[in-house]
Amino acid sequence: MADNKKMVEQITSMDEDFAKWYTDIVKKADLIDYSSVKGCMIIRPYGYAIWENIQKILDARFKETGVENVYMPMFIPESLLKKEKDHVEGFAPEVAWVTMGGSERLTERLCVRPTSETLFCEHYANIIKSYRDLPKNYNQWCSVVRWEKTTRPFLRSREFLWQEGHTMHRTAEEAEARTIQMLNVYANFFEGDLAIPVIRGQKTDKEKFAGALATYTVEALMHDGKALQGGTSHNFGDGFAKAFDIQFLDSDNKLKHPHQTSWGVSTRIIGGIIMTHGDDNGLVLPPAVAPIQVVIIPIQQQKEGVLEAANRIADTLKAAGLRVKLDDSDQSPGWKFSEYEMKGVPLRIEIGPRDLADNKCVIVRRDNREKSFVSIAGIVDSVNEGLKNLTRALYEKALKNREDRTFSAQTLEELTEIANNKNGYIKAMWCGDLECELKLKEVADVTSRCMPFGIEPTGDKCVCCGREAHKLVYWGKAY
Amino acid sequence: MADNKKMVEQITSMDEDFAKWYTDIVKKADLIDYSSVKGCMIIRPYGYAIWENIQKILDARFKETGVENVYMPMFIPESLLKKEKDHVEGFAPEVAWVTMGGSERLTERLCVRPTSETLFCEHYANIIKSYRDLPKNYNQWCSVVRWEKTTRPFLRSREFLWQEGHTMHRTAEEAEARTIQMLNVYANFFEGDLAIPVIRGQKTDKEKFAGALATYTVEALMHDGKALQGGTSHNFGDGFAKAFDIQFLDSDNKLKHPHQTSWGVSTRIIGGIIMTHGDDNGLVLPPAVAPIQVVIIPIQQQKEGVLEAANRIADTLKAAGLRVKLDDSDQSPGWKFSEYEMKGVPLRIEIGPRDLADNKCVIVRRDNREKSFVSIAGIVDSVNEGLKNLTRALYEKALKNREDRTFSAQTLEELTEIANNKNGYIKAMWCGDLECELKLKEVADVTSRCMPFGIEPTGDKCVCCGREAHKLVYWGKAY
Repeated sequence: MADNKKMVEQITSMDEDFAKWYTDIVKKADLIDYSSVKGCMIIRPYGYAIWENIQKILDARFKETGVENVYMPMFIPESLLKKEKDHVEGFAPEVAWVTMGGSERLTERLCVRPTSETLFCEHYANIIKSYRDLPKNYNQWCSVVRWEKTTRPFLRSREFLWQEGHTMHRTAEEAEARTIQMLNVYANFFEGDLAIPVIRGQKTDKEKFAGALATYTVEALMHDGKALQGGTSHNFGDGFAKAFDIQFLDSDNKLKHPHQTSWGVSTRIIGGIIMTHGDDNGLVLPPAVAPIQVVIIPIQQQKEGVLEAANRIADTLKAAGLRVKLDDSDQSPGWKFSEYEMKGVPLRIEIGPRDLADNKCVIVRRDNREKSFVSIAGIVDSVNEGLKNLTRALYEKALKNREDRTFSAQTLEELTEIANNKNGYIKAMWCGDLECELKLKEVADVTSRCMPFGIEPTGDKCVCCGREAHKLVYWGKAY
Repeated sequence: MADNKKMVEQITSMDEDFAKWYTDIVKKADLIDYSSVKGCMIIRPYGYAIWENIQKILDARFKETGVENVYMPMFIPESLLKKEKDHVEGFAPEVAWVTMGGSERLTERLCVRPTSETLFCEHYANIIKSYRDLPKNYNQWCSVVRWEKTTRPFLRSREFLWQEGHTMHRTAEEAEARTIQMLNVYANFFEGDLAIPVIRGQKTDKEKFAGALATYTVEALMHDGKALQGGTSHNFGDGFAKAFDIQFLDSDNKLKHPHQTSWGVSTRIIGGIIMTHGDDNGLVLPPAVAPIQVVIIPIQQQKEGVLEAANRIADTLKAAGLRVKLDDSDQSPGWKFSEYEMKGVPLRIEIGPRDLADNKCVIVRRDNREKSFVSIAGIVDSVNEGLKNLTRALYEKALKNREDRTFSAQTLEELTEIANNKNGYIKAMWCGDLECELKLKEVADVTSRCMPFGIEPTGDKCVCCGREAHKLVYWGKAY
């Protein structure tokens, strides 16, 4: 167990320094590496396999709702970016500009896409002529670039991977329905697959997407009490359609502007998984996206029959559709235990000569280290149940953390006091004025995370100015 | 059938103007659209679905050989690009340069990756320390940029999608074996899945990748007799490893440089499919990558039972794992016939009241329009057999085209005469001198496509200078 101890000591404790714990994890679990490209990360095989699993699940769910994938150019001419006023103001300060092609200066500079509304709109203007061409439900998986000053792996980097859905609809109602539909796809994915509870709600005008009519969000609370925006879904109305002159002939023979949505999630999700479920021994991965769901570690593997039994168990589990790794390397079991704990593998199976004699093996859960002795004959059921229980336990634990860290404030003093002493959400009423929103940022260093759906108001007076207020807001500090 | 005729008339005949036929197809089959980003293309849903099928097949085959996916930054600092001399000379003239981030001028300009050897090498230098760290078999799916002057959809564009595998090995032998292994993965994919016969061979020094020791290629011949490089696999030896100071401690306790490979295919493949199998009615897609493998078109669909039967057939075929579309729109059957012919759907099923009365339907093959009347009960077998036969027929037809267009020359006069009057490969011996290779380009406008594996020499004298020659070369004009 000496090795085991040594590896664990390499991670900073999360209570001691959460930020350092986080960067330790992303490095030691082999998720990322740095390069000489400042602010950009290398996503290593283990990290990328998590992203591939995220993609596979979401892509299938998108397609079930009629979404089709496309690929747009990665460059946007400056004149195209400028077509929608709010949009360019929101993004121009943080884009990377290509000014040279080979040895020639370009006549018009091109930005590397920070998001692709403008390109989709230009294309839609070409292909949408009639109501028969609607809806268009397009999505693309790609990388985008935003020239951030301070960066952190997965959470904020100059280049990141994401998907961006862009849809066009005949009516405002249909666009709003699609916006909410995709928000729910995200919420169900976070809660059902990633075991991360989320608050669904609407962003304030200050926090909404540049150019959107309304932005909806799923907000998650990390272990340290800071909030993470998990995914957003925007209703653009017909603002972009007007700016880009997109019109269709409706069945009543009138030319109309279609209504638009966009929605996206990114590799940030991986940061959210780490900070929701991780612990001082490393990553803890929800089974739905874990590259390895079960690791099998033979004990005294030189003894007769042990490796054969381990291989049989591995084959049985693989045949049942599980992602399995058998580690029969010459490292010690102790080293392997901490290695796969660091990597967040949900279940570990130990099998040694004594277990074998009883036709049993040991299953150890990553989250609580609970051990069960189970029969080899029933291994598939035991593993599936173990994975299900672990997913539920991760969700419950994260939910409890959020509940323990959700506070309520009636006055500015209360809110400031909570913000200064506790980390989490603060529920408080808001009159709707930008001025009050800015003041809370100034005096309590909190921002509005969202105006949640379906949650009871906590009063009827603005926490800041005391005037009449109908909007409940979750305030907090965010990644 | 008036509609049918009308649509077909919109495409230029391939014999009349092959280049125009090609661009007609990519537009009319809804594969791509143009945008205001010069030289870049929008890959539309139907085109992108072909690419997704290509990715799915190849990605699984890569992973079967132990390949893992990663993601590298899209930017390369100029100093990093310059580390390997041949490499920077090959690529610097055609890269796009980012010089501004937001409103600030960068202290060092960054190129948008034209390929990622340099980034992989920098990363490998960080993570390879011991022989236990080898091999590393990494791949990434991404977009790359090359600032081309003249562009054509899929064949040559400023941005394109591809995969680039980059591997590191303990020995030269292992690297060479991996290089050939991946070449064979490509060859089997082209021949078995895309029904495109290929010549496997080695590139001459002039045509090899900038910085490689040896470049292997799979070369396909298009319908018009021009060659297309389908995929390449490079053995880098330890050249990059030395330039990037990548060393590992071997089991004999000596520091050594690992041996490297890289290999890639791109969205060019889609251009190759179009130009190999397409005809004057549009695309013809090999079933393995066709987004729709079978389209079902009801005849007199208002008649009782027709739509129900069509739906039952669709469900049965989908349950058998086939990609099926039932078009029950109010367009005429004739319109639908030409629409799905344009889109290259391999099989069409027609079902009308009379067929239904006999419990039969009609299957029409896209390639030769052959009709079969088959029983609805046995539809899955009939469709699978139809798809298999079509794949084989596409391959045979392409192979015959290549054989009919493969010529042989003993002298420079013969070669020039063939090059001036015929389109295809010219087999001719070569002494190995760059001068002769350049002369053939000058006098006959042909380039060396490859030195094929396992094909008998056609003589022992260089076709150009008459000196002793051991190398058989396939010469031709290439896309």
